Amino acid sequence: MFEARLEESAVLKKILDSVRDLVQEANWDCNDDGIVMQSMDSSHISLVCFMVRASSFEVYQCERNVSLGVKIDSLAKVLKCAASDDSVTLKADENEPNTMDILFESKKNDRISDFQLKLMVIDQEMLGIPESDYTSTVEMSSAEFRRIMGDLSTMGDSVTIEINKGGASFSTKGDIGSGNICLQKSASVDKPKDGVKITMVEPVKSTFSLKFLNIFAKAAALSDTVVLSMSEEYPIRIEFAIDKDVGYVRYYLAPKIEGQES
Amino acid sequence: MFEARLEESAVLKKILDSVRDLVQEANWDCNDDGIVMQSMDSSHISLVCFMVRASSFEVYQCERNVSLGVKIDSLAKVLKCAASDDSVTLKADENEPNTMDILFESKKNDRISDFQLKLMVIDQEMLGIPESDYTSTVEMSSAEFRRIMGDLSTMGDSVTIEINKGGASFSTKGDIGSGNICLQKSASVDKPKDGVKITMVEPVKSTFSLKFLNIFAKAAALSDTVVLSMSEEYPIRIEFAIDKDVGYVRYYLAPKIEGQES
Amino acid sequence: MFEARLEESAVLKKILDSVRDLVQEANWDCNDDGIVMQSMDSSHISLVCFMVRASSFEVYQCERNVSLGVKIDSLAKVLKCAASDDSVTLKADENEPNTMDILFESKKNDRISDFQLKLMVIDQEMLGIPESDYTSTVEMSSAEFRRIMGDLSTMGDSVTIEINKGGASFSTKGDIGSGNICLQKSASVDKPKDGVKITMVEPVKSTFSLKFLNIFAKAAALSDTVVLSMSEEYPIRIEFAIDKDVGYVRYYLAPKIEGQES
Repeated sequence: MFEARLEESAVLKKILDSVRDLVQEANWDCNDDGIVMQSMDSSHISLVCFMVRASSFEVYQCERNVSLGVKIDSLAKVLKCAASDDSVTLKADENEPNTMDILFESKKNDRISDFQLKLMVIDQEMLGIPESDYTSTVEMSSAEFRRIMGDLSTMGDSVTIEINKGGASFSTKGDIGSGNICLQKSASVDKPKDGVKITMVEPVKSTFSLKFLNIFAKAAALSDTVVLSMSEEYPIRIEFAIDKDVGYVRYYLAPKIEGQES
Repeated sequence: MFEARLEESAVLKKILDSVRDLVQEANWDCNDDGIVMQSMDSSHISLVCFMVRASSFEVYQCERNVSLGVKIDSLAKVLKCAASDDSVTLKADENEPNTMDILFESKKNDRISDFQLKLMVIDQEMLGIPESDYTSTVEMSSAEFRRIMGDLSTMGDSVTIEINKGGASFSTKGDIGSGNICLQKSASVDKPKDGVKITMVEPVKSTFSLKFLNIFAKAAALSDTVVLSMSEEYPIRIEFAIDKDVGYVRYYLAPKIEGQES
Repeated sequence: MFEARLEESAVLKKILDSVRDLVQEANWDCNDDGIVMQSMDSSHISLVCFMVRASSFEVYQCERNVSLGVKIDSLAKVLKCAASDDSVTLKADENEPNTMDILFESKKNDRISDFQLKLMVIDQEMLGIPESDYTSTVEMSSAEFRRIMGDLSTMGDSVTIEINKGGASFSTKGDIGSGNICLQKSASVDKPKDGVKITMVEPVKSTFSLKFLNIFAKAAALSDTVVLSMSEEYPIRIEFAIDKDVGYVRYYLAPKIEGQES
């Protein structure tokens, strides 16, 4: 029996919210390390993955590796039935994972809900994730990132992100004009939530679809900060770490080529 | 002259909100006891009624019984023009009730609004309400009731409600799976707002349309608690009492027969 | 170079919000006194104008009078990219005003945004504003004004506003009935925010389109109070003064003639 119990359902709700606009169904691969999902979005342009580490569960038992074929929207509907501070337990039969049992328990133990969710067989290979030694990264407030992506979308379809030693800039161009938002590197690098922290081997500048970045930015609910990792002509990686080493949600998106339409 | 004055318009606003999704027009029967409305919903499936007792009005004068044919939505529009702490006075000519005069007065008396609402002649018999000695009742938080009805609606069309000595359970089934929310009976029965109070002669279990229960649940705005009264193969009664013996809003809904579609 | 710097972008955001539902594009006339815009709404029924005085800018430099042809919606989109407490600087070339440069600076100076907005050539004559010695004015809470206009709209298409020595009244009539909201003149005239202040040579009573008054009422965000100025058979003037002599937004609307449809 696969069994995993989280103290609060809120984390799982937020993870589902951060992937459900991109992915309809995907395998959740459960093994000793924890639960991992990775999938192309349904238009096959971006890649999204998340990990929740085994150590972050109150109970985690996984005798055999198992892939659970989850319909994201259905699981999100079930999770909606939990109060944010309910505990949540996921259970499945490792040999024949046709259904997932989901149990919610209220803190005061006066409300117990159990759901059975049908699972699917999803024929999906684990993708080789395009990791690399990124030449530049910027860590910044996730709320600020979300705000900037939303603001620039009112003007253009794509954003050019530039990281250099002075800071990070985000610029766009559209029918009504053009704009550029420039964030200065913080003097003190201690509090990336309120500032901007740059790690750089060499400056980098690439252009991305604002439509996707706006979807990714919703994961700001998961984390106070976001880390953008870039290399020239390479997909950007956008990572939202989840509280206290619980895990992460990561998005990957290839840059637009000059002259190419979104 | 029929005249009834409420100290705060808020109560009447909430009563209208709790019936306007079900009833378009209905007679308000005014007599010595107070004002009563009862009506089938427009699809003739459920029954809704409310009572506001004469004693809960600041002024209540009703020389002759009179039926006021009210278009609910129109009266709700008029009530929208009152601040929640305005007093409201309803007046009508008992002999020829063609219009209702509605007067709002602000607490500081610096704003007086008077409206004339056209009344209708509604040919509607007073229905025999299917009261009985219910075999089981559960009193619980109205907010929790509303939340559960909403949550289960994401998964199914109907809910099976079961009351037994341990508590009350609400279960549904749909394309994506099935679910069951179980509320334990409270040890102390003093605070039904935070707990669940069961009164039971024998256990009961019936299935109802979630569409209607969701509409009824909006009346949670009227009262902190709700009382569900059930007997086997008998319509459920869902009652929201209004503050301090002011009155109540009650809904009645027949159970679904096995194999029947909603 | 024309240059004008406001300490907080919020004022400009609110001004744009108060005109964007009426005007799509208009000349902003900049001279020694400040910035003035006036324009008929796009249906050519009402007139809207605003003024921001030169003295209310931190920096204001205008060597030559210049008309900037602004697409209101586009400028509003750009302003959306500023935090409310960012400073905003507008710049344009007085000789060839093809674009407006807009600069936002955060209080902590860690975020600098610059936008270029394309300007238009708008062939628009400065209109003679129908000012007069109004025979009656009422100053009242702008939130109350907004609420009353909204409330009466649920019932009718037009409102009859009457000012007399006792106060101001607002009445409407529709299919479902009729209504009248009467505000008493305040005993103390010190706090028009909480009361109603009347200045009157002779009583006046005229009828106006609620559709337009509801649009004007959104400018309540700019000011705690609103002043309605009326003369018999003359357009009403509705003025929202902006904080501390910054300027104003004014609307003008002709009364409906008896028997005329809106």
